[in-house]
Amino acid sequence: MVSFECDYIAGAHPEILKRLAETNMEALPGYGMDHYTASAKEKIKAACGMTDAEVEFLVGGTQTNAVVISTMLRDWEGVIAATSGHVSVHESGAIEFTGHKVIELPARDGKLEAETIRKYLETFRADVTNDHMVFPGMVYISYPTEPGTLYSKAELTALSELCREYEIPLYLDGARLGYGLMSEAADLTLQDIARLVDVFYIGGTKVGALCGEAVVFTKGNRPDHFMTSVKKRGALLAKGRLLGIQFDTLFTDDLYFRISRHAIEMASKIKEIIRQKGWRVYMDSPTNQQLIIMDDEQMEELAKSVVFDRWGVYDESHTIVRLASSWSTTEEDIAVLAEA
Amino acid sequence: MVSFECDYIAGAHPEILKRLAETNMEALPGYGMDHYTASAKEKIKAACGMTDAEVEFLVGGTQTNAVVISTMLRDWEGVIAATSGHVSVHESGAIEFTGHKVIELPARDGKLEAETIRKYLETFRADVTNDHMVFPGMVYISYPTEPGTLYSKAELTALSELCREYEIPLYLDGARLGYGLMSEAADLTLQDIARLVDVFYIGGTKVGALCGEAVVFTKGNRPDHFMTSVKKRGALLAKGRLLGIQFDTLFTDDLYFRISRHAIEMASKIKEIIRQKGWRVYMDSPTNQQLIIMDDEQMEELAKSVVFDRWGVYDESHTIVRLASSWSTTEEDIAVLAEA
Amino acid sequence: MVSFECDYIAGAHPEILKRLAETNMEALPGYGMDHYTASAKEKIKAACGMTDAEVEFLVGGTQTNAVVISTMLRDWEGVIAATSGHVSVHESGAIEFTGHKVIELPARDGKLEAETIRKYLETFRADVTNDHMVFPGMVYISYPTEPGTLYSKAELTALSELCREYEIPLYLDGARLGYGLMSEAADLTLQDIARLVDVFYIGGTKVGALCGEAVVFTKGNRPDHFMTSVKKRGALLAKGRLLGIQFDTLFTDDLYFRISRHAIEMASKIKEIIRQKGWRVYMDSPTNQQLIIMDDEQMEELAKSVVFDRWGVYDESHTIVRLASSWSTTEEDIAVLAEA
Amino acid sequence: MVSFECDYIAGAHPEILKRLAETNMEALPGYGMDHYTASAKEKIKAACGMTDAEVEFLVGGTQTNAVVISTMLRDWEGVIAATSGHVSVHESGAIEFTGHKVIELPARDGKLEAETIRKYLETFRADVTNDHMVFPGMVYISYPTEPGTLYSKAELTALSELCREYEIPLYLDGARLGYGLMSEAADLTLQDIARLVDVFYIGGTKVGALCGEAVVFTKGNRPDHFMTSVKKRGALLAKGRLLGIQFDTLFTDDLYFRISRHAIEMASKIKEIIRQKGWRVYMDSPTNQQLIIMDDEQMEELAKSVVFDRWGVYDESHTIVRLASSWSTTEEDIAVLAEA
Repeated sequence: MVSFECDYIAGAHPEILKRLAETNMEALPGYGMDHYTASAKEKIKAACGMTDAEVEFLVGGTQTNAVVISTMLRDWEGVIAATSGHVSVHESGAIEFTGHKVIELPARDGKLEAETIRKYLETFRADVTNDHMVFPGMVYISYPTEPGTLYSKAELTALSELCREYEIPLYLDGARLGYGLMSEAADLTLQDIARLVDVFYIGGTKVGALCGEAVVFTKGNRPDHFMTSVKKRGALLAKGRLLGIQFDTLFTDDLYFRISRHAIEMASKIKEIIRQKGWRVYMDSPTNQQLIIMDDEQMEELAKSVVFDRWGVYDESHTIVRLASSWSTTEEDIAVLAEA
Repeated sequence: MVSFECDYIAGAHPEILKRLAETNMEALPGYGMDHYTASAKEKIKAACGMTDAEVEFLVGGTQTNAVVISTMLRDWEGVIAATSGHVSVHESGAIEFTGHKVIELPARDGKLEAETIRKYLETFRADVTNDHMVFPGMVYISYPTEPGTLYSKAELTALSELCREYEIPLYLDGARLGYGLMSEAADLTLQDIARLVDVFYIGGTKVGALCGEAVVFTKGNRPDHFMTSVKKRGALLAKGRLLGIQFDTLFTDDLYFRISRHAIEMASKIKEIIRQKGWRVYMDSPTNQQLIIMDDEQMEELAKSVVFDRWGVYDESHTIVRLASSWSTTEEDIAVLAEA
Repeated sequence: MVSFECDYIAGAHPEILKRLAETNMEALPGYGMDHYTASAKEKIKAACGMTDAEVEFLVGGTQTNAVVISTMLRDWEGVIAATSGHVSVHESGAIEFTGHKVIELPARDGKLEAETIRKYLETFRADVTNDHMVFPGMVYISYPTEPGTLYSKAELTALSELCREYEIPLYLDGARLGYGLMSEAADLTLQDIARLVDVFYIGGTKVGALCGEAVVFTKGNRPDHFMTSVKKRGALLAKGRLLGIQFDTLFTDDLYFRISRHAIEMASKIKEIIRQKGWRVYMDSPTNQQLIIMDDEQMEELAKSVVFDRWGVYDESHTIVRLASSWSTTEEDIAVLAEA
Repeated sequence: MVSFECDYIAGAHPEILKRLAETNMEALPGYGMDHYTASAKEKIKAACGMTDAEVEFLVGGTQTNAVVISTMLRDWEGVIAATSGHVSVHESGAIEFTGHKVIELPARDGKLEAETIRKYLETFRADVTNDHMVFPGMVYISYPTEPGTLYSKAELTALSELCREYEIPLYLDGARLGYGLMSEAADLTLQDIARLVDVFYIGGTKVGALCGEAVVFTKGNRPDHFMTSVKKRGALLAKGRLLGIQFDTLFTDDLYFRISRHAIEMASKIKEIIRQKGWRVYMDSPTNQQLIIMDDEQMEELAKSVVFDRWGVYDESHTIVRLASSWSTTEEDIAVLAEA
């Protein structure tokens, strides 16, 4: 059996485990005060081309979204997100748990369009009763998006300009950031993103780490007493080294980008297999997740040798199947899939 | 100048003020433990034809929605509401402030349709990842709806049956309940509503009271220690008599229904004036609020003698204008409007 | 039967009811935008001798504390209060409901001492692990205190200077403010309080109003978008006139002070009766609440003609009884008590 | 330099790292659905002698406290804890962030006494105004306590009986559970604890793991939809294997107990050094943390070769110093300390 179920089926990249082992018995201070965490922050700032950015590490994606959004919003504000956004659908109400509304706007292929937001903001500002409404205080996007699509540089620039015009921070959820940046279809670099958004996170959990996300505040806008707010939300890791060492390793010798590139190459091979087998594509994605439509009989046959995700029902006799590659996908996995 | 701006432009019905004055110097216990409050509860239960209902008084509509919804939902649940619902749009995020998501579904003319909710619930139940989502734990509707439309008995019955099938409580926001019940178009009685929903409130603020809403729990489902949860939300009134005496008066000799009927009669006269003047109707409402489209010049002319609500922009040179009647609208007001 | 149970046994001062009746049918805008509310704000600012103060009206005391504290604290902060403070004991956790800790410090006779707070603040600042603690972000006191004692001008000045030194706002809960200011023992005026604290509220519910508290922000420190934050907490009254007209009346011709003075005079008479009857005093209070120790037999005898509050158990055969006067206490009430 | 700063200065026990490496490339389902997590749960239940317990894994201690307490309390309830308890002092208000009060009671040597709680509960129940207060809904204790003391079996039995009498769950924070259980002074076993409390957690972070705490619900009392509530609080780990494999290793061949025992042996040697050097003991602890009083000159001398924790100021020229051992303390560390 081989698995293409999702991009967090394996542990950590072996290089990370090796570094954890090498540093294991060093006595280090807790809560991210260790020198590996400091080093990781410097490397990430360098990769972003932004020496004055502020970097903080958290454990998981939903936690990161809840911490960042709730510490940056003001009392009377909510966050704009796509109806299909992760914070809208798949976080069990973690944003609302902090007392803030997710203002859902329709998206196209998982992407929020600047014009949609502009129209919303104009209507909101023109509404004389808006003191009775939730004020838009942040725009949340994901890159890649939940269905695996990518904002172009032009699209992200338009969002960025809109947000600056309206003085609303733009936040980018990069749970799978590496798989977006390394896509052939991407025209955005990490530096572009750091420049265009106000805050974003570089996903580790799905890109080589056991756990961990690196939040980058790009505009001197890290909330005051951030550590205390993180602790208040139960999100402060005692052994901060676990996050620091992982990200220090990922941002040494471009490991983060190399393993992301590998996942994209594996995705290309999966696409080639899809084409060869004549499977129907549900949504064409330039990143590491492929959605196909299979008839249920065929799907059960495939399930004998391949683990995959049943993404949704297509019709009475067809299912939407997701095949995800990741840093851990091997040529052997691909070979099994090709023969399945 | 006369005002048709909204249905809370005046103080209280004179009969209420009279009763407040008559009882003013009586020494009464606080927090709703007085005999007027007890009497009001009995009268409301009688009007609902439901001797075992439980009635509680709160001060305002948003407060009532937040208290009822957050004390009835369980930790992992949110409330389904129309995208145009009051809790979705005009409560500054009061539901989210309590840590719960408003799950917004599209409505038709302000009304949630049973089939829309059924489809949502079926999809939710079929989704194998729904442990990562907010569980639907209540359905919120308003009667009349925000734009002034009414559920028919058939429609409310369908919602009621759906909610029972899925074991989800149905909550009805009756901020303007009297104006709905007394509409010519209504085929629902107060007893019908009490029977079909799990919890609802009878609006006082917009129907004759200075303030106050009466929540009716119809299924032995008042949350435990409700008084403490009310206090915790800053919603417990020390002089509960203020609410008790008002509702005792409103439910004596059918005052609530008589003044609601009056508002509907005044609304009919407004409709007649609209017809005579040839004003364009934006949405035809059988209740106390009329929405019309006026060209801006004509509107400014009207504004010289009439106060109204500028509900929204229609196009570059037209505005949607709302004319609301209420228990306090007089024949003289109508005459001024007719001549305007 | 006469009642000395508490200071909210009656409705409103008759002058207030009269004004509510006189203004009842005026068409006024909602949410505190009416001219009576504007007038009330001006009169309160004048009474405070502070033309640039900002005044806002809320419905009740717990609500006011929760709204003011939670909108002024920052995410990582809590509020310091006496262990015996209203927010610590008798608000069902309303402050915690907003996500903030009440940091309880010991008080003497209900009063927080500047030295107690200073010691706490010094220890907090010296603690190198304080990033893991709740930061002190406000000091809450009440005047009169819960057991009816009063801060002297020297004591309040010491608290004020301490708070300014540490840059922490000082908030005064004036639920019974009038009864404190009019006490023979008071050496503080309303102007003194406005000058010495950062924010406070003038209690209406217990001093002549049906409901209502007037919050005074004295340092240009009203939170941004306060109306929306109030609405978000379910605390915005649609018919703001109810609060505006009441406070406008209370601050016309010194009504608030005159009726408070009356309550204090009635309290003096109660004290005289206590002395004549030889009842034991539990705590000597210069304000409107007297605490005495009665043996239980004697207490049951008193209960035949007088309603009072059973404040607490003193020992196996004695109870602490509270006798409260208020603006509504009459000479006849006193006469009945004297004969009881 | 050697470090006795705290018990989380090192990474993971080498056996854990070895198992993480061995299992690293296995494709496993996420969110704790993997077979290692299942195995760990079984082993923990066996160690507790309780086959029907329910075990859940979380990442850190503050997170665990916030999740367990807020999902078990009802809306109107708070949690009783020692004034010196971790939830009272060192969690940045994480419990209050979930909307619940920590009801602080005085403790003796860090331990809550049954009689203290009983008196509080009796007073609370007798108070006729308790509807205006936070209801006690849980008792929180820690074992070992924050200053390193231990409840005896008699003391824990008394707390357990009291809690059952009052039908309030008893929750034990076992952040350093191993170091308590393996103390020479302990007369409680893991099975005793599982039997006497309603819910507790077995700390991993401070006892050999990189991160992780194992919550044990002992009375069929795991909250419904716990996974969703965990996700809602941002506490659900995608790669649940990280927790499962660590605890599976810790509960294989008694590793958890063996390494805890080692820490206690190292603590004994530290105590012997303290005695030999004639250092003053601040609080005598039978667990892994020793508190001593040093004059500041002497302390700075020690700081040249030993890292320790400056626990607090003793007087103008003395500091309270904490020396902690852990599973990672070596004989070499002890030798350096002896010579310091």
